[in-house]
Amino acid sequence: MTPTVTEDSGVPVDDFWAIVPAGGSGTRLWPLSRAGHPKFLHDLTGEGHTLLQGTVARVAPLSGERVVVVTGVAHADAVRAQLPHLRAEQVLAEPSPRDSMAAIAWAAAVIEARDPEAIVGSFAADHVIPDGAAFRGCVREAIDVARDGFLVTIGVEPTFPATSFGYIQMGHRLAGHASAARVRQFVEKPDAARAAAYLATGEFRWNAGMFVVRASVLLDLLGQWHPELAAGARELAADPSSLPRVWPRLTRIAIDHAVAEPAADIGRVAVVPGSFTWNDIGDFATLRELLPAADGVAVLGDAGQVVTLDSTGLVAARGGRTVAVVGLTDIIVVDTGDAVLVTSAAQAQEVKGVVDALKATGRTTLI
Amino acid sequence: MTPTVTEDSGVPVDDFWAIVPAGGSGTRLWPLSRAGHPKFLHDLTGEGHTLLQGTVARVAPLSGERVVVVTGVAHADAVRAQLPHLRAEQVLAEPSPRDSMAAIAWAAAVIEARDPEAIVGSFAADHVIPDGAAFRGCVREAIDVARDGFLVTIGVEPTFPATSFGYIQMGHRLAGHASAARVRQFVEKPDAARAAAYLATGEFRWNAGMFVVRASVLLDLLGQWHPELAAGARELAADPSSLPRVWPRLTRIAIDHAVAEPAADIGRVAVVPGSFTWNDIGDFATLRELLPAADGVAVLGDAGQVVTLDSTGLVAARGGRTVAVVGLTDIIVVDTGDAVLVTSAAQAQEVKGVVDALKATGRTTLI
Repeated sequence: MTPTVTEDSGVPVDDFWAIVPAGGSGTRLWPLSRAGHPKFLHDLTGEGHTLLQGTVARVAPLSGERVVVVTGVAHADAVRAQLPHLRAEQVLAEPSPRDSMAAIAWAAAVIEARDPEAIVGSFAADHVIPDGAAFRGCVREAIDVARDGFLVTIGVEPTFPATSFGYIQMGHRLAGHASAARVRQFVEKPDAARAAAYLATGEFRWNAGMFVVRASVLLDLLGQWHPELAAGARELAADPSSLPRVWPRLTRIAIDHAVAEPAADIGRVAVVPGSFTWNDIGDFATLRELLPAADGVAVLGDAGQVVTLDSTGLVAARGGRTVAVVGLTDIIVVDTGDAVLVTSAAQAQEVKGVVDALKATGRTTLI
Repeated sequence: MTPTVTEDSGVPVDDFWAIVPAGGSGTRLWPLSRAGHPKFLHDLTGEGHTLLQGTVARVAPLSGERVVVVTGVAHADAVRAQLPHLRAEQVLAEPSPRDSMAAIAWAAAVIEARDPEAIVGSFAADHVIPDGAAFRGCVREAIDVARDGFLVTIGVEPTFPATSFGYIQMGHRLAGHASAARVRQFVEKPDAARAAAYLATGEFRWNAGMFVVRASVLLDLLGQWHPELAAGARELAADPSSLPRVWPRLTRIAIDHAVAEPAADIGRVAVVPGSFTWNDIGDFATLRELLPAADGVAVLGDAGQVVTLDSTGLVAARGGRTVAVVGLTDIIVVDTGDAVLVTSAAQAQEVKGVVDALKATGRTTLI
């Protein structure tokens, strides 16, 4: 199937709301990302805005000021400080982590209470999409598809047989839309051979965890498989004072398992394919790919503080000190004020082990 | 030839003086070693004393207080601070670098002026010899050989076919001494094949740059090939006020080329073999071998600040921060207050290129 890029027309969609789940600790990005200051609060791409600010700015041409951020209570103040134009009720503070379904359902219920016909799009706060116009073109088509009652996901065209993402298998095209198709199935992160087989078919897309759907449809679908979750979310929206009582009882489950997969099985999920570059910055190897490289080394921070000889990889100079790298291939060096990490691109997923080790030895101020 | 370890008898030798040349910038040990604070001023082995202090303490059982340190004028105060028991005249401050022959000749002439029969031993301030008693046993024999008019060097038994050291080829044994032999020749740093061939003969020793000789013999031998150097050194000893005039005119030459090699050609050089462990800490790969390793990683500094997972190599934690290393083999990480270096053991010799790069870009405060 040929990838389609729908150009964004630039006009906001009056009944469209953006939901931005801002969660996750980003332990694979330690020591840049910390539990108290997770990755979405950082400018990891050196573009002058944080991942959270970039996410909101990217969708704003469609949503206008209709944005709701859901984050942990520990990060709510930092989120508000980074997004000063949001009103108090646009930042929902979770008393405790209850996974993505509870977060998105709560936001959807709050939006539904204001506008029962509203369409919502959920976009994680820590993803990077350099081509915002191409992204919005896909979302705009997804909004149109969502008006027909579908739960719509964006399927990112794979550029390599990734094993760290789930996949979406596309089915028949949906009539009346530029590129949307039904979803045949969602599949879990594959092994390398299976990922290559997926790519060979041309039917599979990366699951970037983006969903566009009428708020009421999302909650009604959720009600089919997790009625207590849908009812709890609507209770929170109707009576904010119920939060301390209702929140702790909400089922911990990801939106994929709670709604997307079962809804696909009954033919209620569509996919709009997108061929834009998408990066979830899962680890430093992924981050490296986002950054321009001079002489083979991508630099985050002040390039004037970095000296590299015969090396390739990523250097993050965030400690105010000179970082020198000599004769190493695919090396990752992350310098911060109180900690320095050295690993390789191939081992980047294992960085979370450092956080585990620090936790185990009681050095919790560093994590 | 079987290595011989002569046990040290523990009695000082009344006419023996130690000369400690404290020079060299140690650019291969950047950022631990800096031009303003070179490696001999550091505790690189984590033993609680600097290399300079360790060198003086190692020879003190033979020399007593008869020690003369020769160092650059920029480091004289630091040397005096580290060796507070030395009198002012025991630290000779070179106005400018003139290589090892000028430094040693000056010290030898100063000692000769005090005791015309004195025997001197020259031991660089930045070498490490864990077994001081074995070292002193060799020096004690070298002193006895020096009484016969020889320039005596210590030949360290090679433990591998090193290509970063010069070698000494031993000739016939000297009668009347436990293990001393004549030197057939000094040879320059060999390539790997030649080094292996040297080891196979059993006749070759590492040239550790240690010389034991009667002060007057050294200066008289020097006078044969470099009369202006010998005369200049004796003028400095006779009239310290001549330093600004005489010093800049002294020939820049290493003691090996100025005296040791030509004297070997006329049969005036002997060697005492030593089988002690000797390390000149030429780079971080060499330093690593000196340090105990836990889980494959040698740590210099506070081991409580180091977290390593599936890694081997060296971590120097001298920056007061946590250093984490994940999944790297033979890695070198050196953390200091204002700079961090990352390289591999195999590339350790190339670290001097960082100093060159910093110099070229004007960042001289870091070098």
